[in-house]
Amino acid sequence: MKKLNDTMLCDDYEMKMGQTYFEAGEKDKEVVFDIFFRRNPFQGGYTISGGLDNIIDYINNFHFDEDDIGYLRNTNNYTEEYLNYLKDIKFTGDLYAIPDGTPIFPNEPVITIKTKVIEAQLLETAMLAHFNHASLVTTKAKRVTEAADGRSVMEFGARRARGTASAYEASKYAIVGGCSGTSNVKTAKDLGINALGTMAHSLITFYNDERKAFLEFAKSNPTNCLFLVDTYDTLNSGIPNAIWVADNYLKPNNIPFKGIRIDSGDLAYLSKAARQMLDNAGYKDAQICLSNGLDEYTITSLIYQGAQFDSLGVGDNIAASTDRVDGVYKLVAVKENENFIPRLKVSNDTVKTINPGFKKVVRFYDKETNFALADVIAFRDEVIPENEYTLIDPSDEWKQKTITNYEAKELQVQVFKEGKQIYEMPTVFERKEYCTKQFETLYPEIKRLEYPHEYYVDLSEKLLKVKKELIEEHRQGGTDEKRKVRGIE
Amino acid sequence: MKKLNDTMLCDDYEMKMGQTYFEAGEKDKEVVFDIFFRRNPFQGGYTISGGLDNIIDYINNFHFDEDDIGYLRNTNNYTEEYLNYLKDIKFTGDLYAIPDGTPIFPNEPVITIKTKVIEAQLLETAMLAHFNHASLVTTKAKRVTEAADGRSVMEFGARRARGTASAYEASKYAIVGGCSGTSNVKTAKDLGINALGTMAHSLITFYNDERKAFLEFAKSNPTNCLFLVDTYDTLNSGIPNAIWVADNYLKPNNIPFKGIRIDSGDLAYLSKAARQMLDNAGYKDAQICLSNGLDEYTITSLIYQGAQFDSLGVGDNIAASTDRVDGVYKLVAVKENENFIPRLKVSNDTVKTINPGFKKVVRFYDKETNFALADVIAFRDEVIPENEYTLIDPSDEWKQKTITNYEAKELQVQVFKEGKQIYEMPTVFERKEYCTKQFETLYPEIKRLEYPHEYYVDLSEKLLKVKKELIEEHRQGGTDEKRKVRGIE
Repeated sequence: MKKLNDTMLCDDYEMKMGQTYFEAGEKDKEVVFDIFFRRNPFQGGYTISGGLDNIIDYINNFHFDEDDIGYLRNTNNYTEEYLNYLKDIKFTGDLYAIPDGTPIFPNEPVITIKTKVIEAQLLETAMLAHFNHASLVTTKAKRVTEAADGRSVMEFGARRARGTASAYEASKYAIVGGCSGTSNVKTAKDLGINALGTMAHSLITFYNDERKAFLEFAKSNPTNCLFLVDTYDTLNSGIPNAIWVADNYLKPNNIPFKGIRIDSGDLAYLSKAARQMLDNAGYKDAQICLSNGLDEYTITSLIYQGAQFDSLGVGDNIAASTDRVDGVYKLVAVKENENFIPRLKVSNDTVKTINPGFKKVVRFYDKETNFALADVIAFRDEVIPENEYTLIDPSDEWKQKTITNYEAKELQVQVFKEGKQIYEMPTVFERKEYCTKQFETLYPEIKRLEYPHEYYVDLSEKLLKVKKELIEEHRQGGTDEKRKVRGIE
Repeated sequence: MKKLNDTMLCDDYEMKMGQTYFEAGEKDKEVVFDIFFRRNPFQGGYTISGGLDNIIDYINNFHFDEDDIGYLRNTNNYTEEYLNYLKDIKFTGDLYAIPDGTPIFPNEPVITIKTKVIEAQLLETAMLAHFNHASLVTTKAKRVTEAADGRSVMEFGARRARGTASAYEASKYAIVGGCSGTSNVKTAKDLGINALGTMAHSLITFYNDERKAFLEFAKSNPTNCLFLVDTYDTLNSGIPNAIWVADNYLKPNNIPFKGIRIDSGDLAYLSKAARQMLDNAGYKDAQICLSNGLDEYTITSLIYQGAQFDSLGVGDNIAASTDRVDGVYKLVAVKENENFIPRLKVSNDTVKTINPGFKKVVRFYDKETNFALADVIAFRDEVIPENEYTLIDPSDEWKQKTITNYEAKELQVQVFKEGKQIYEMPTVFERKEYCTKQFETLYPEIKRLEYPHEYYVDLSEKLLKVKKELIEEHRQGGTDEKRKVRGIE
């Protein structure tokens, strides 16, 4: 797929703030921004990271075209000097990111960017759009495929996605999150795989005769004989007709009867009846595929009810799920005299106040079980002890826990160094395999659908101390006395 | 924005059914498909149509590239003859659509396509993705801007959209739905307007000094002095600093003080306090802009509470709302001997069963008040009486109502004729104006947020009769006797 230049896909205020930095002579000042999010989607216990592939492409192609500059000039909002600067802007800094497919948790810096302030500011919007979309789809696909408990899940939601480009991306991230394939031909082509699919109701209504439709399909698509049986009446018409075609055409011609798909009605009841009918007819290998607005909850319920199925098709709920990943992009440090000085945005709620400073995330894995025990957010230059670490809950400091016998692993990898990409993006299938392995390190309590246990994400003692000091400083900035001292009146 | 070729953005089963039609010698058979939806999003009383602009572009550019055919060949699913047919395929038929920006209702054919069966089948997925995304955004924007009751609403949700291309489109449809502008620079450029925006919290945290941040912004962006006041403490720091900069820099330099934006906290309380502070300082013209996860409900509540504001910024809830338009694409007729024979897909629920046949939608407007009274779905060749019409509720036939003194208007316009575009797509701003006018024809009871009245959408007597006959035919197809007659065993 041809990559568009999305440099202009930014919020206008990035442009205007850029002009402030430029006109105030701050253009070469280095800053650090973090992408993080505040809650897991779907009331879940985890999020799976995604979108780094698009973010890398976007940054590599980050530049204004001549007619972009012409448009900006015509807005009468910008000085010629600033436009000249924009004309030659490109990304010159460093970028660190937790690889796509990693379980991530609220408030962790997933992507950290260190570069000149105007570059950093302009990159905000498109990076977030990619991160938020990809992480949402990957997370939902993981939830759905986990619920399917080993049965394959095919993604086929393109028609309900938020436009065609969004559909294209969703089909890719669905595979990272565990789907076995996609119906999306464009995505499949770019991934070098075959797309999946057989027939829609229109084929049957076109012929106005279910048996003829199945027969014509079998003649023209002999390797894909999975018949859609619910157009008129699943048990009284669809399945009998599928079996008739299997008996009278497939078997005599040595064509495999792959099975049936049921797309409406009570899937638990119908699938059990279907299994019996297929078995009785001698088609124990014929598979049952179910679809129709499925998600992790309906799939769990189907399994609980003993529904008989081998695979699932999931559309809307992966490609166009009704939640959001609420990723934000916050300035956390500014370089002054060779040091990155932490910066803070205060919120009324201490826990919601951002974590200041140029940071890293370290995950502790139990050496024996390989389960992830906790993450700690620390300043980038902090040394994390190798043998024993005391976790402190940032919102309840009396909650402490000392862990030992762990392997401590830094989660972010460096992706760009001084503007050059130094990280090779894994393929979609490598990401899928990596995601599966990473997901296995989570305790089941974190993964469950209902009321999951909250994964421990702690702040290093030093980070917590600096954060408190900064909060205190800005809180006091609000009192009459301090404001007078600071000259605010 | 360069248009991508989305011909491959289809579900794989379209390709496979295409092969069936081709191999069965049906490739020249003409069919009719409808796009319709089954429920209004947001539990609302209406949907606003959208996406026709992208659908037109997509259809005009509908063709397979050489390497698409090469990929399809490599899947080993397709015959050379069929691939040869696909190589030269283009849209040769007719397309009718209800113009973008029109209030539309469940089960109405919004877009109707009449063309050769393989073309029609392949167009399904991308058309639906465009229709569903655009209609969702336009509808939500209309709900939000209506709730704002005359105050301007700026759309700034690109960062939360489902990828950057989805963001680009959303910003456009938000304007059709009533937003006064967008922060999205790329969309603004293509629309030939200025994007909107001022500053983010990062500007303030960069300077670590609110007053200096405002001052530097004012120096570099003198025509856009709307200060973000909630970074540290809205009432004790943000507003006093904004006023200080207005008094000490803006006023002496004759720079207009546009106002302030509050992006967190209790917006009702803070906005009232802010208004008083600004008024007391002599800035009665300084505007108050509110933002922070707003939607039609929070806006209604703000107004109810007497919040003081002049404009709103809405992000997530327009560009990435958490609902869906569930548009589907169903075969409704097949041409046999010069006649379009209605086709049906049955559902257990009669009302949910599709409306068969090549149809049209007629809206009755009261000649005196111009209010929309009801819509009727009829066969395309039916004549709708000009003076008196009896509406029959399709699910409760005893519910009848005779209307008079109306103007009956067909809603669909012809967009393509024999493959050629014959409809000139209105600009985004023309669509916005049209949408505003169309929206005024809806009774307030249809438009209210809570438990809206259901708009009357009836079927013509003839359509209802044919539908019942077809249901009966297929229902009986499920009984033992009829199945024997039809040879199903």
